[in-house]
Amino acid sequence: MKLGGSVITVKEKIMAPNLKAIRRLAGEVRDARVKPLIIVHGGGGFGHPVAKQYGIKGGYKDPSQVMGFSRTHQAMLTLNKLVVDALIDREIPAVAVQPSSVIITKLGRIHVMEERPLTKLLEMGFVPVLYGDAVLDSDMGFSILSGDQLVASLAIRLNANHIIIGVDVDGLYTADPRIDPSARLIPHITLPELRGLQHKIEEARLTDVTGGMLGKVLELIMAVEWGIPATIVNATKAGNVYKALKRERVTGTMIERGGGIA
Amino acid sequence: MKLGGSVITVKEKIMAPNLKAIRRLAGEVRDARVKPLIIVHGGGGFGHPVAKQYGIKGGYKDPSQVMGFSRTHQAMLTLNKLVVDALIDREIPAVAVQPSSVIITKLGRIHVMEERPLTKLLEMGFVPVLYGDAVLDSDMGFSILSGDQLVASLAIRLNANHIIIGVDVDGLYTADPRIDPSARLIPHITLPELRGLQHKIEEARLTDVTGGMLGKVLELIMAVEWGIPATIVNATKAGNVYKALKRERVTGTMIERGGGIA
Repeated sequence: MKLGGSVITVKEKIMAPNLKAIRRLAGEVRDARVKPLIIVHGGGGFGHPVAKQYGIKGGYKDPSQVMGFSRTHQAMLTLNKLVVDALIDREIPAVAVQPSSVIITKLGRIHVMEERPLTKLLEMGFVPVLYGDAVLDSDMGFSILSGDQLVASLAIRLNANHIIIGVDVDGLYTADPRIDPSARLIPHITLPELRGLQHKIEEARLTDVTGGMLGKVLELIMAVEWGIPATIVNATKAGNVYKALKRERVTGTMIERGGGIA
Repeated sequence: MKLGGSVITVKEKIMAPNLKAIRRLAGEVRDARVKPLIIVHGGGGFGHPVAKQYGIKGGYKDPSQVMGFSRTHQAMLTLNKLVVDALIDREIPAVAVQPSSVIITKLGRIHVMEERPLTKLLEMGFVPVLYGDAVLDSDMGFSILSGDQLVASLAIRLNANHIIIGVDVDGLYTADPRIDPSARLIPHITLPELRGLQHKIEEARLTDVTGGMLGKVLELIMAVEWGIPATIVNATKAGNVYKALKRERVTGTMIERGGGIA
């Protein structure tokens, strides 16, 4: 499961955790009692502003970025600590796993990943908690690994049954619901349909008209192709993450491979 | 360099960091400007009480320990965050590296270690900061990896020039200075001499008469045998860590291989 930075931090504020949301979500995870479970969270107001300020995503260009990498990573560790603390408070055996300690990217894509501690943690009944992080990159020196890339890659490597993406909107829309009143939520979409949507957007030379969701969704495609369905739900609304974890009917968008793809 | 838990936390208190000492030590590290440098710290009042309460060191015996493992690791992460924050405040590009993410032990000894992120961090000018941690164990489920074992192992694997051990005593004594007024500080000792001392203690069936220091020192022997000298200094006294990093004359105990050993 991925919890978006927009859910667990206060939007447009720097280094402001949304502790109320974090605690509520920890409660929903406890109540759902789903195992094995891996949680990945985003950066929101913690990671993004620092990473942007120092241009970490673009790789190493000059020595002034070195402190920026340290600060970005430490900001993410600070947010991660709050999330894990909340889970432990709910008696969930959560264990922080630091992405930059186990992953090296190559041009921003996961290249090396040490999976053994993660596999063993799951076997023993722990809930590993990872996050989008500033990571080392074999070609660029360092880069940013998004929580979305991480969750898709983990799902494939560990052969997950299901991916849940908790964000601050209800799911994928036919248009941006913030500007187009005719926008409709898409409850179910297959990969061929998703590719059609992507194509239409690219043809129109529009920046992601679906309200920023399509960019996220594209990271998930590889995992969906692998046969792992992904459900996008609004994690700012109480009960949605619980329902998604329990595989109950929930408002959102489910992405599945669909019949036509091998 | 290893910084003992007794130096960076308040003794006999639970979860009480010694922030004054942490900040002073961060300043000494900045002033010394030694690179490459790896810092390992101990647990003191953070890791030890929780680990002991749940019997983490003895390995997995029953499910009630699972929360204890989570809590021990999270307590260490909390202390580590304070150390790294203090280093970053001094403009040292410190990066936390979580031992349990990269190390699996076998019967309590380091068995698997993913070294690539650590090597690359050093190459790029970062100061990795590790710690004694609750780790997964291939035979026992989990165990405790001491900062002392970790620092010796890292020194060998990464071919260090020198190990510095910062503790709350001046070094290795001929007897326990807290109870024996005739105890003398040993400024320099070779491995054969150290083994003689160890033998004498074992013969007398005494628990570590040197004031708890011999146990620590035994972890370092492998690294010293490998040709890496280790200097023990009192890190609670201002300036000692700076001097040790700069290789200046400092009160303490230096352990070297000595001529007779291959």
